[in-house]
Amino acid sequence: MAQFIKTPVKGMNDMLPADMRLRERVLGMIKRSYGAYGFMQIETPAMEHIENLTSKQGGDNEKLIFRVMKRGAELQRALDKGDGELADSGLRYDLTVPLSRYYANNRERLPSPFKTLQIGSVWRADNPQKGRFRQFTQCDIDILGDESSLAEIELIAATSSMLSQIFATIGVTDFTVHVGDRRILSAVARQAGFGEEQVGSALVSLDKADKIGLPGVERELLQNGFDAEAVGRYIAFYEGAQAGCEAEEFCKEIGEEYLPAGVAGELSAILESVRPMLPAGVSAVFDPTLVRGMGYYTGTIFEVSMDGYGFAIAGGGRYDEMIGKFCGQRVPACGFSIGFERIITILKDHLPQGAPIEGGATAFLIGARVPQERRTQVLREAMRVRESGQTATVLPMSKNVGHQIELLEKEGFTRFEKVFE
Amino acid sequence: MAQFIKTPVKGMNDMLPADMRLRERVLGMIKRSYGAYGFMQIETPAMEHIENLTSKQGGDNEKLIFRVMKRGAELQRALDKGDGELADSGLRYDLTVPLSRYYANNRERLPSPFKTLQIGSVWRADNPQKGRFRQFTQCDIDILGDESSLAEIELIAATSSMLSQIFATIGVTDFTVHVGDRRILSAVARQAGFGEEQVGSALVSLDKADKIGLPGVERELLQNGFDAEAVGRYIAFYEGAQAGCEAEEFCKEIGEEYLPAGVAGELSAILESVRPMLPAGVSAVFDPTLVRGMGYYTGTIFEVSMDGYGFAIAGGGRYDEMIGKFCGQRVPACGFSIGFERIITILKDHLPQGAPIEGGATAFLIGARVPQERRTQVLREAMRVRESGQTATVLPMSKNVGHQIELLEKEGFTRFEKVFE
Repeated sequence: MAQFIKTPVKGMNDMLPADMRLRERVLGMIKRSYGAYGFMQIETPAMEHIENLTSKQGGDNEKLIFRVMKRGAELQRALDKGDGELADSGLRYDLTVPLSRYYANNRERLPSPFKTLQIGSVWRADNPQKGRFRQFTQCDIDILGDESSLAEIELIAATSSMLSQIFATIGVTDFTVHVGDRRILSAVARQAGFGEEQVGSALVSLDKADKIGLPGVERELLQNGFDAEAVGRYIAFYEGAQAGCEAEEFCKEIGEEYLPAGVAGELSAILESVRPMLPAGVSAVFDPTLVRGMGYYTGTIFEVSMDGYGFAIAGGGRYDEMIGKFCGQRVPACGFSIGFERIITILKDHLPQGAPIEGGATAFLIGARVPQERRTQVLREAMRVRESGQTATVLPMSKNVGHQIELLEKEGFTRFEKVFE
Repeated sequence: MAQFIKTPVKGMNDMLPADMRLRERVLGMIKRSYGAYGFMQIETPAMEHIENLTSKQGGDNEKLIFRVMKRGAELQRALDKGDGELADSGLRYDLTVPLSRYYANNRERLPSPFKTLQIGSVWRADNPQKGRFRQFTQCDIDILGDESSLAEIELIAATSSMLSQIFATIGVTDFTVHVGDRRILSAVARQAGFGEEQVGSALVSLDKADKIGLPGVERELLQNGFDAEAVGRYIAFYEGAQAGCEAEEFCKEIGEEYLPAGVAGELSAILESVRPMLPAGVSAVFDPTLVRGMGYYTGTIFEVSMDGYGFAIAGGGRYDEMIGKFCGQRVPACGFSIGFERIITILKDHLPQGAPIEGGATAFLIGARVPQERRTQVLREAMRVRESGQTATVLPMSKNVGHQIELLEKEGFTRFEKVFE
């Protein structure tokens, strides 16, 4: 066993019991919250066909695939060929490509619209750094086959309710759901004078406004060689516009040739419908400068932010064109991706000691010389503790019982009974 | 997207919502049951170093590894070398090798003895056949660092309680825990006249007794060329011995030079301690012919069987020498592996319709011409349903509402409210 390696594979984690207790508790809240809204949990295999993973739907993640080798004769053929593909599958890097394949494969058996929840590991051969791992949990909720704004309303309401429950455990109640629209972003850029093929760049720069400010966005666009007049009009549009303004008010200067009628009104209607459904402390606002990175969004986009954290806790939007590329038939879609690992990071900041075991936990520690009869009594006592809904463990007492208790306390045990004879 | 493949990777499964509902319910019962006994859930990465997976601890499973390719310059070096190892890791084929690595890596931070529960996917490049998949869920519970029989007692009691809860959902209450001991099996073979190096073969043949009968075992041993007298004595020992006999009675003919004193008494004491802890309908018996395939067991072995099913529902035993090979220090260990996929198969046999959504579930179906005001009312009504602890979903009504309801019924919805205007 000279070759044996104790540490996990680079960039991946061994989950200690305290980690798992927290993760399981949060996962339970996620499943219950979305379950109550009728989202149905599904699961796809960890591996996907290499063809699907490299079909250009995964963006930069396609560079980070862990490839799984062919086996036996097929591998030999590929090796003999010299430049053949050695992998026939790979580990999924997100849950969206698998969802698209899943829906294409199973849609006849699924209700329409289909409201679904996926929780699972994804793998990316990224450079490991603080808070970024090569295996991590993703949590996606999606509504497929609904082009009405009911999808947006249910997604925002369900996600707010879920997050509110989770953060209540650390006494945090306030967060904000930002709602924007790709069609408005694009209309503003085109009206300012950006050409159709320049809109993407205009959005990429605007996305940095929260970091470099509007003057920074202006500088970047000018440096990138865009027409100064267009840049000026573009920036002017966002000056004075803030998260929380009215969508109709913001859009009233946009010509109908750039923005389909009714987009702003639809957005306001979503916010109006959703607000009475939000838990106390949660607000939902129109945010004209919200961009969201992924190129596949086609309409509304959303993001949940919380004071004191410079990252989004959840984000998503409408992507009506993507699933169809896999299905061969247009399927409107809208989804939210929950930053599960980020939520865990926030909770850990507030719970440095780890979560105690729910309902209380007793450890019976039995000395080496305790006769069988007494041991049987203790086993029965432990059964009674369990029957009362608590946790009980029966363990042989260690020589260093102080250290044994210390480590059990770290794992959430609160009551100790030493049995010496 | 010409290359796109709709089906999952060969031998792997898309989990439909009804499957997931059942699996999640069973997993919840497993986690709660073992949690109440103080077993701590842990998790290891899906990938392990290729060196660990091929360290000869995995038996035949080492032939079934899905290998993950090196990347970038390292891959190129391996390819240039011609016969280099192209993989640096692989997907785990069981949870035992990862547990050994985990314990070697983290033992200072874990209580001792360490009672742990692992639930996770494993991958084997096996030939797919009915009921055998290339990705499936394993569920292992282990106690590391306890050489006393408290480990056996807690494992059997916790597993019986867990299985009893699960099978109660389909009205099945009766099953049997068979307990044997590797040391007794080996003593019988040696006393009959098998040499030290022949004991393994004697056990492999005996393991088939439930399929081919004792005469079949005798025939096989003779065909394999073992001494006829030894075979005769071996078979005679098991004639008349049945599951349920007394361990001391069975062992009284075995000389002390073959069997350490106290082994039979210890086994009886385990059964005696465990019986009052078993749920109604569950029995625990000494089974002298129980073998269990894996070579690494060193003492007690156990298996749970149920009338009408020709496979074990759970099995395990003591393996005091294995973890030490990874840790460099002897660590006594005892564990149970739950046949999760087999349990799901049994439950599905009894629940062909799928489990309904717990607490009841209402679907509000909203017609296309329903005005926003009315829609908002319905959204509020759905909130009230959720607040009462039930599931509620709000969906746009499909053109074929009958079919929509049919598919929702399949997914556990029981109440439908159509809103037309």
